[in-house]
Formats: sequence, structure tokens, C-alpha cells
Amino acid sequence: MPEETPKSLTLLVLSGDMEKGLAACNLALAARASGRPVTLFFSFWGLNFLKRPGARAGGAFLARCFSRINSDDAARQRLGRFHMLGAGRWALLRLMGRYDLLPVREGLQAAHQMGARIMACSNTLQLLGLQRDDLIHEVDDVSGALGFLDAADEGTVVTLS
Amino acid sequence: MPEETPKSLTLLVLSGDMEKGLAACNLALAARASGRPVTLFFSFWGLNFLKRPGARAGGAFLARCFSRINSDDAARQRLGRFHMLGAGRWALLRLMGRYDLLPVREGLQAAHQMGARIMACSNTLQLLGLQRDDLIHEVDDVSGALGFLDAADEGTVVTLS
Amino acid sequence: MPEETPKSLTLLVLSGDMEKGLAACNLALAARASGRPVTLFFSFWGLNFLKRPGARAGGAFLARCFSRINSDDAARQRLGRFHMLGAGRWALLRLMGRYDLLPVREGLQAAHQMGARIMACSNTLQLLGLQRDDLIHEVDDVSGALGFLDAADEGTVVTLS
Repeated sequence: MPEETPKSLTLLVLSGDMEKGLAACNLALAARASGRPVTLFFSFWGLNFLKRPGARAGGAFLARCFSRINSDDAARQRLGRFHMLGAGRWALLRLMGRYDLLPVREGLQAAHQMGARIMACSNTLQLLGLQRDDLIHEVDDVSGALGFLDAADEGTVVTLS
Repeated sequence: MPEETPKSLTLLVLSGDMEKGLAACNLALAARASGRPVTLFFSFWGLNFLKRPGARAGGAFLARCFSRINSDDAARQRLGRFHMLGAGRWALLRLMGRYDLLPVREGLQAAHQMGARIMACSNTLQLLGLQRDDLIHEVDDVSGALGFLDAADEGTVVTLS
Repeated sequence: MPEETPKSLTLLVLSGDMEKGLAACNLALAARASGRPVTLFFSFWGLNFLKRPGARAGGAFLARCFSRINSDDAARQRLGRFHMLGAGRWALLRLMGRYDLLPVREGLQAAHQMGARIMACSNTLQLLGLQRDDLIHEVDDVSGALGFLDAADEGTVVTLS
């Protein structure tokens, strides 16, 4: 008799705060390690986690201005609480290093290598004036909200907003 | 043989940030377009999305004071990130208009016309000193937490907090 | 014929804002009152809701510094919106008292007495330099992300982030 298929985990990342990215990676890694299929869907400010450092928005003038302000990317994000001009982030990353906890970029790479699927929201890309080439190469798919809903149907959904 | 019933989508909106309202509408519209039953439950600051512009809190003195400060309503909400005294909101709404993306109010109306059910949290109403008449007419139900849990039992739950 | 088992509710609390704690308690109490099994998993800033007042972080110098700044605990948390140096919290707690709504600490106690299971994230404990003794006695388990995933598999998941 075949073993029961484990339930999948779908993560919807709407926030760009570093804490939310860390939680997403932590859950994705634990889920993959226990054999659960994992999909990470990044939308709105969450898309920052997928932005290649140095990527420049194109298109509308407003989109290009906005991209100057919304400058976080895959390698560097602000904390939602206690950012303190970067001091809080620095302290947290140092503490994490001491316990071998991965920053978001390395966490995403590890999750992807373990088979997690990474999706970017097509509406957000358009709005921010970004192209697929502006995203890190771990992105498997660019899709609308329906892509998220189809992935979510089968199992556990965690929203990081 | 009858087709399988699609899973439902239940959205719990606890935040009043415009981004969260946009995400809720976007998901609700995609879910209805693909035949999924949809319930939107608004609680805490999320109730602002349902407040009729110009509604005035009654009851306790504190509730009336609080309502002056918590002044967002169905037609106008601040951004959680990059609000910049309204400049961020203005830029985002302009960019959205360019790609035919709807602001929250129009998005909620469209979702409701497509059959999404809109619920308001009764505890929050009481706390904020509001009556049902202070809410937009698209609200189908006013209910406690149990109303949300009953809707959530059947399908996918997304929390926007 | 046996009655159908009600679906469980699993709450993932990642935020330390008082609103999120109130929502978690409200949902947990309604779910228990209707016979649903309930698990509350607290991680990241959400762990503040479980910190015994006066608990002092040990370990690394940075962890001890951080704990001075991240000073919220089970008895006292800031609001995410309209905190206003404590005035918003004071007003909200007074309004809640008028309608017999419980603050987070009493809400958690009540939920625990009604059978809700309370879990603390082991990674977060380590990162913040806290021991299990620094947490309120209602905590049933200290566990990693897998503990959350196992609880989540069976039913409704609500993320408060």
C-alpha cells in the first residue's frame, strides 16, 4: 500500500520586511526536509526578495522614481521592527550567524535546491516596471493570482503580509 | 458524473493598509473568475475598508476620539510602506490606473457583483462605536469570529494582517 | 454514527503588535467554544506575548542589548497602528474593558484553560537569548518549524504577521 502523500505548503509573501523573508525560508526548509511539496509566491513588496541587486526599473517615469525609493533587493532588506537605520538588521544577522541561521538570500537558494518552487507575481512586476531578467535566477515561474490559488488548493497556506 | 466542486477562498483582512486591500481584491476576483466561492471577513483596522466615507462613530467619548484619528474609509487608505504623506499612494494609484488595476473600493464592488460575500466583524464595530448603517451597502453580514471560522472550514484561508 | 470531527485551527503568530495578539485570542476562544482543536504557535516578535514580565535575556552581549530594546512582554505590548506613545493602547484597552473584551494575557490564559495548546518557537528562543523559564507557564511546548507544520496539516491556518 502506498504511503500517504504529505500535504503541500504554499507561502504567500506580500511583505518585504526581512523577518517575513526569514520566516518563509525557515518554513520552506522544514517543509522540504519533511517531504512536503513547497511553493513560494512573492507579490507586492515581497517581490523585493527576488530583485537582482542593481536591477533598474524601466517603463513609466513614476515606476522609475518609485524603484529608487523601494530599493531593497534579494541581498538586503530592512527589518519591519527595530530596523534602527540598519543597526537592528546588523545585530540580528550577527546573532543569526552565531547559530548557523541563513539570511534570506541563502535560505531561498537552499530551499530552491531542495525542490521548493519559487513564483513571482506578474501584476507586481508590471507595476514596478521590472522584467523577468531583473529577478534572481531561482525564480521558476511568473504568474498571476490564479497561479497562487492553484498551488494553494491542496494543502497548508501561510501568508506573510 | 458531476464535476468536482472548487475549493473556497476565505480572506481575513485585519490590516487597514491599502496594499492589503488591493491584495484581497485581486485574490477575490481571481478566485471568483475561476468559480471558487469567496468570503471576505474584515476585522480590526481592516474594517476601515468598509466604512462609508463621512461615517461618524457614536457611543463612548473615547470611541469618538479614536474615530477622528482612525480616519481612513472605503474610499481612501494609507499605504503601509512608502506612504510619504500621501505621495506614495498617489504614485501607486496612478501606476495602477495605467494598467487598469482597480483601487480597493472599485475592486470590492466588482468582487461583490461577481458573488463574493463580504462580512464585517461585530466586535470591531462595537469597539469603534459604529453601526451597520455606517458601512458600505456591499456588506452582506455582520458576525463574530465564529462566522469567519465556519466560512474558513472548507477551503483555502489567506490572512492579510 | 459518530459525529464529524471539527476541523482544527492553527494560529501562527509572528508579530508582536497587540492587535495581532487580540485577534489570535479572539479566534482561539471562538474555535475552542465551538469544539475545534486549537494550537497557537508563537515565533519571532510574536514570542513577546509569551515573555514573563521582567525576564532577562542571557547569552551573547548582542542578545542582551537587543532584549533591552525589544522590551514588550506577556503583560504589555505596543499597538502596530496608533500606538501614540501608549495613548492609543490606553484608549483601546479602556474601550475593550467596557465591552468585557480581554487583554492578550487574560485571553491567552482563558484559551489555555479551555484546552488550546501554546507552542513557542525554539529558534527564536535561542536567537533572543531566552530560556524556557523566561516564558509564562501556559506554554505547553517549545519546538521548531516542523512542530507548526505538523499541527497545521489537519485544518485551518491563520497567520498573524
